[in-house]
Amino acid sequence: MSASHIHRGPEHAVAEEGSFAASTSDLPVLQYYPCRGRAEPIRNMLVLSYVGQPWFEPPLESIRKIQSIMRREFDGYPFRRGRGLSRLPRFIDGAHGEVDLVQSGAILRHLGRTYDLYGKDLVQAGRVDMLLDAAAELRAKLRELVVDAGLAESACVAYGESVLAGEEVLRGSGMQGPGLASLEYPLARQRYSSSGWLVGEAPSLADFAVFDLVDLHLGLFPDLVGGRFPALAAHHAKVAALPGVAEYLASDSRHPAAWAVQWIKGEETHGSAQSGA
Amino acid sequence: MSASHIHRGPEHAVAEEGSFAASTSDLPVLQYYPCRGRAEPIRNMLVLSYVGQPWFEPPLESIRKIQSIMRREFDGYPFRRGRGLSRLPRFIDGAHGEVDLVQSGAILRHLGRTYDLYGKDLVQAGRVDMLLDAAAELRAKLRELVVDAGLAESACVAYGESVLAGEEVLRGSGMQGPGLASLEYPLARQRYSSSGWLVGEAPSLADFAVFDLVDLHLGLFPDLVGGRFPALAAHHAKVAALPGVAEYLASDSRHPAAWAVQWIKGEETHGSAQSGA
Repeated sequence: MSASHIHRGPEHAVAEEGSFAASTSDLPVLQYYPCRGRAEPIRNMLVLSYVGQPWFEPPLESIRKIQSIMRREFDGYPFRRGRGLSRLPRFIDGAHGEVDLVQSGAILRHLGRTYDLYGKDLVQAGRVDMLLDAAAELRAKLRELVVDAGLAESACVAYGESVLAGEEVLRGSGMQGPGLASLEYPLARQRYSSSGWLVGEAPSLADFAVFDLVDLHLGLFPDLVGGRFPALAAHHAKVAALPGVAEYLASDSRHPAAWAVQWIKGEETHGSAQSGA
Repeated sequence: MSASHIHRGPEHAVAEEGSFAASTSDLPVLQYYPCRGRAEPIRNMLVLSYVGQPWFEPPLESIRKIQSIMRREFDGYPFRRGRGLSRLPRFIDGAHGEVDLVQSGAILRHLGRTYDLYGKDLVQAGRVDMLLDAAAELRAKLRELVVDAGLAESACVAYGESVLAGEEVLRGSGMQGPGLASLEYPLARQRYSSSGWLVGEAPSLADFAVFDLVDLHLGLFPDLVGGRFPALAAHHAKVAALPGVAEYLASDSRHPAAWAVQWIKGEETHGSAQSGA
C-alpha cells in the first residue's frame, strides 16, 4: 500500500509553486529532507503507510530548492506568499484543500483526526496527547545526545543512567527523569490498554510516535533497550509488523539517515555534488 | 466566575489520596506549584476562567507534599498507584471521571475538546495545533533565557536580535528563528482569521497559549514587544479583556511568580519556613 505510492519520478517544482500545489494536487504532499527525522512517524513507517494513504514527496532537487529559499531569506519561507511558519516537515493535504501545516506534532494530530487514530473518546484522546508529548520530550533529549553532544562517551554514560535508567534504579535515585521507563510503565502495567497498544484496543498516534522513539534508541543502544524495556521492545515489534508499516520498513523508500541535521550538514559540506534522488 | 471558585481553604490531602480524589470530586482538580508557569494557560487567565468552569487547586501544603513525594522517590510519583508520568501540572477532570493527565499541552487540548475551543473543523484544528506547537517552542526559548541564562545582558541582547527580531530584520538575516515574528505574521496578515483571533471567528486554545507567551514577554521586554509586534500586543489586550479572563487577571488568585523553577528554588533554599498559602 505504501512504498510504491511514493512519487519518485524526475524533478518536480516545489509543491507550492508547481503542479503539486495544494490547490491542484489530489495527493497529500509532504515536504521534508531526504532522511527520517521528524517526518518519520508521519511519512513513513507509520500513519500514511498504515492507513494506506498514498502521498507525494518532492524529490531531492526540490527539497534543495526549499532549503535554499530557507537559507536565502530566513523566515522568508514563512513570509512568502502568505504562508505560515518556517519549518519542515510541511504537510499539504490535497484531500482537505486548505490544510497546509508545519510542526510535526500538528501534522500527526491532523492525521490522527482524519484517520481515526486519536482514541475513541475524550479520555483516550487525552492519553494519546499525553504520550505524544512525552515522546516528543524524550526525542528532544535523544537529539541533544546525538546532535549536540555527538554521542560522546561520557554523555552516553550519563544518558544510560538517566533517560535509559530502569524503573527500579529511578525509584532509588534523585530526580533525573523521566525517561523511557515512563513509557515502559503504561505498557508493562497495561495502564491504558490490555491489547498491547498504548491506548485502547487499536493502534493510535501514540503507538506510532513511541515506535519511532524506541526505533531510534534501538539503533543506538539495542542491548540496553531490549534488556531494560521489554514491553517497549515487544511493542516495537508489534508496530513493525502492522500491515503497511511492515511493507514500508522493508522498502527502499525508507531513508537511511535518522536525523535531518546529518543530511543538512552533508549538504553544507558537499553542496549539490552529492548524488541526486 | 473564576477566582472565587478556586478552593483556598485549609490544608487538604493530596488529591489522589483524600476527599478530592478523582473518583469522588465533582470539580476538576489541578495540581501545580503556586506560580503561573505551565499551568497558566490552563488554570488561570485562560481556559477555565474563560469558560467559567470552577476548579479545585490543592493548597500550598498539599503541593509541598506532592513535591516531597516526587523528591523522595523520583518517578515514584508516576509509579505509585499505577499513575502515569511524573509531571506537574496534573489535571484530574472530575466531570469526566477517568481523565487524569499530565503534560500541559495534553491538558490544554483536553480542555479544547471539552469546551469547543479547538476550531470548528479539521482545517482550523490543524492550525490551532500548529500555533500551540509554535508557542511551546518559543516558550522553551524564553525559559532558556530566563532560567538557564538568568537574563544575563549578553543573552538578552542575542534574544532581542533573534527571537524578538522583527520580520524585516529576519528577512535580511541568516537562519535565526523562528521568533515572535512568526506569530505576529498570521495575526497582522489575518492569515487564518479576520476576527482578531488567531484561528476562525472565536477564541481558541491557540489564543490562550499565545496570550501567555506574549504576556511573559511583555513582562520582560514591554517596549520591544509593543514596538515590533503591534498585532500581538493588540491580541494580548483582546484576550485580557475577555469575560472571565479579565476577572481572573485582576484577582488575587493569580500567582505573582511566573516560572515554577523560581518557586521550587525558593523552597529548596527556605524550606517550609516560607509563608504558607
